[in-house]
Amino acid sequence: MQTLTVDLADRSYPIHIGEQLLKNRELLVRHVRAKQVYIVTNDTIAPLYLPALIELLDGYQVDTTVLPDGESFKNLETLNQIFDGLLEARHNRTTTIMALGGGVVGDMAGFAAACYQRGVDFIQLPTTLLSMVDSSVGGKTGVNHRLGKNMIGAFYQPQAVIADMSVLESLPPRELSAGIAEVIKYGLISDREFFEWLESNLPDLLARDPKAMAYAVKRSCENKAQVVARDEREGGLRAILNLGHTFGHAIETHQGYGVWLHGEAVAAGMVMAADLSHRREAITADELDRIVRLLERAHLPVKAPASMTPDDFLQLMGVDKKVVDGRLRLVLLSKLGEALITSDIEQDLLQETFAACRADEHTAPPGA
Amino acid sequence: MQTLTVDLADRSYPIHIGEQLLKNRELLVRHVRAKQVYIVTNDTIAPLYLPALIELLDGYQVDTTVLPDGESFKNLETLNQIFDGLLEARHNRTTTIMALGGGVVGDMAGFAAACYQRGVDFIQLPTTLLSMVDSSVGGKTGVNHRLGKNMIGAFYQPQAVIADMSVLESLPPRELSAGIAEVIKYGLISDREFFEWLESNLPDLLARDPKAMAYAVKRSCENKAQVVARDEREGGLRAILNLGHTFGHAIETHQGYGVWLHGEAVAAGMVMAADLSHRREAITADELDRIVRLLERAHLPVKAPASMTPDDFLQLMGVDKKVVDGRLRLVLLSKLGEALITSDIEQDLLQETFAACRADEHTAPPGA
Repeated sequence: MQTLTVDLADRSYPIHIGEQLLKNRELLVRHVRAKQVYIVTNDTIAPLYLPALIELLDGYQVDTTVLPDGESFKNLETLNQIFDGLLEARHNRTTTIMALGGGVVGDMAGFAAACYQRGVDFIQLPTTLLSMVDSSVGGKTGVNHRLGKNMIGAFYQPQAVIADMSVLESLPPRELSAGIAEVIKYGLISDREFFEWLESNLPDLLARDPKAMAYAVKRSCENKAQVVARDEREGGLRAILNLGHTFGHAIETHQGYGVWLHGEAVAAGMVMAADLSHRREAITADELDRIVRLLERAHLPVKAPASMTPDDFLQLMGVDKKVVDGRLRLVLLSKLGEALITSDIEQDLLQETFAACRADEHTAPPGA
Repeated sequence: MQTLTVDLADRSYPIHIGEQLLKNRELLVRHVRAKQVYIVTNDTIAPLYLPALIELLDGYQVDTTVLPDGESFKNLETLNQIFDGLLEARHNRTTTIMALGGGVVGDMAGFAAACYQRGVDFIQLPTTLLSMVDSSVGGKTGVNHRLGKNMIGAFYQPQAVIADMSVLESLPPRELSAGIAEVIKYGLISDREFFEWLESNLPDLLARDPKAMAYAVKRSCENKAQVVARDEREGGLRAILNLGHTFGHAIETHQGYGVWLHGEAVAAGMVMAADLSHRREAITADELDRIVRLLERAHLPVKAPASMTPDDFLQLMGVDKKVVDGRLRLVLLSKLGEALITSDIEQDLLQETFAACRADEHTAPPGA
């Protein structure tokens, strides 16, 4: 097992990365303060890992909420089910909420922990590659609103993250690819060497080799932790983590939450950001091509949906939280392995990117 | 105008106390970061102050949510109306939410500010004495759940509090008294001299004399700020601010939210805490009597409802958030002007307090 510390002064916490960690009682209870544990999971993950986890926590009062699986349930109504369960089972301020699942479970359980009695302890047990490399670091929690994604939430840090590589064996291929999209993102925004490592080692990740996977998770978390430590509440720098996300959120909203996986939308969004960066002469045609090829080899979409017009994009990006005082801000590449944040967007180049990155109507959507 | 600073390092903020402050444009916009303002108020306060406030903010994009008045609407569903409004009017991360109203408006607007896009700026414009002396300091925000009061919320500090004494002229007498209950609380828990000032000057407060009122608000806020500065997230000491609240919450829950005003329930709860403190020989019979008399002179209830049995209390206190690992913790007086927190409660004395502090069936409930 390797342990990485996310350095946030009095809110610092460890990320444990290794195999069979969900079977390690000592590790699981190390960060539990009192005798109550509340596990939040979903109906896909519960049959796989929940009974063994409850058994392992023998001696604790363990209660659970099993959410319906999917981004479409990430809302205030479903969140309230967690509060109902906590209050019905009389969990008090010293309880520990465990999030057993992917990003949606982590976002909701973390937000519930942030709000329950104005804040209780929280441990993340991510079961997807995406949640291991994305939600594990940064403290972003929250739910969606019908008018925008992640519009209601909190910055809230966990006591610990326990990333068990063994659970990735059961991850559906489409979700594995979605996670790899975020892994590639770290190479693009801050770590060219890692990008090149991914070009060489992608087959091992697709084959779920635990060593390669642990390396990719650790290096992604390190990259993210460096950025977050310097900007915990997204004042400025941290926004580079949103490479591809402004375009990606527009795609997710347009297609309906959960139709495209988050990582898939981010992949297409990163191609759009890279395409625009190339038109601004920040990266070469060859580099753009390498980015597109790596995402394609990871079985990720590299085009926006055929059904989305430039106007759809602009309108959906208008309500996005990355908009400051009505101006569009985007994360682009300043070179391969380095990102910049700019609100100085050439409208004509942006239109060219919309045109170049739009799928034709014969392109199959993700998951088809 | 007097200004008091609540000292919380990078979350420090001023409380401005004076007359006609809601007509002072410079003061109102001093703490507004960008060009969007979102005012949350209720349908009782809106007709009195909202049009003038909107007019004063000429040049800003001002949008509003007018909530139905009352504690019974302090829930997630009503909170969502604020999010709907913010998103429909496209307020971004630099918006400022203003809470124009009493404690319920402040709690909800503050929690909305804590959660909207994971945190936006927030200014309190309290219109009741209770919210001036209680909600202004401490950063507690949140909503109720059907299974418990204030169970969902956040610690979130405002940019500023603007307490305009002039608005207290329109405050209904019952709400004035409810506010005085919390003012008296500060005397009881940490400021015997202030308690004695209140014994002498209560008539001026009941007559709404602006000078006396400003002094009481300032001294209450100072007392609270001292406690909060030493324990922002309610690790220990801060719990003394809850004198009377554990009993009081039980009363509010039993009677139905909003039937007793919060301050009324706290008044009866403080008598119970004082009664138990007397049985533990921490205060004299004469001091207990002075406390009861001061509350009575302020037209506050000094007995629990006749309909509430000791078992009702115990059951309702069991789900209260002041319970740690299943044990009852109470705030009691160690002497007049000093509080202590204890989980070492003599069950027989507690039962005696329940018996001594229960109204008979001929006692009129508050507001009758």
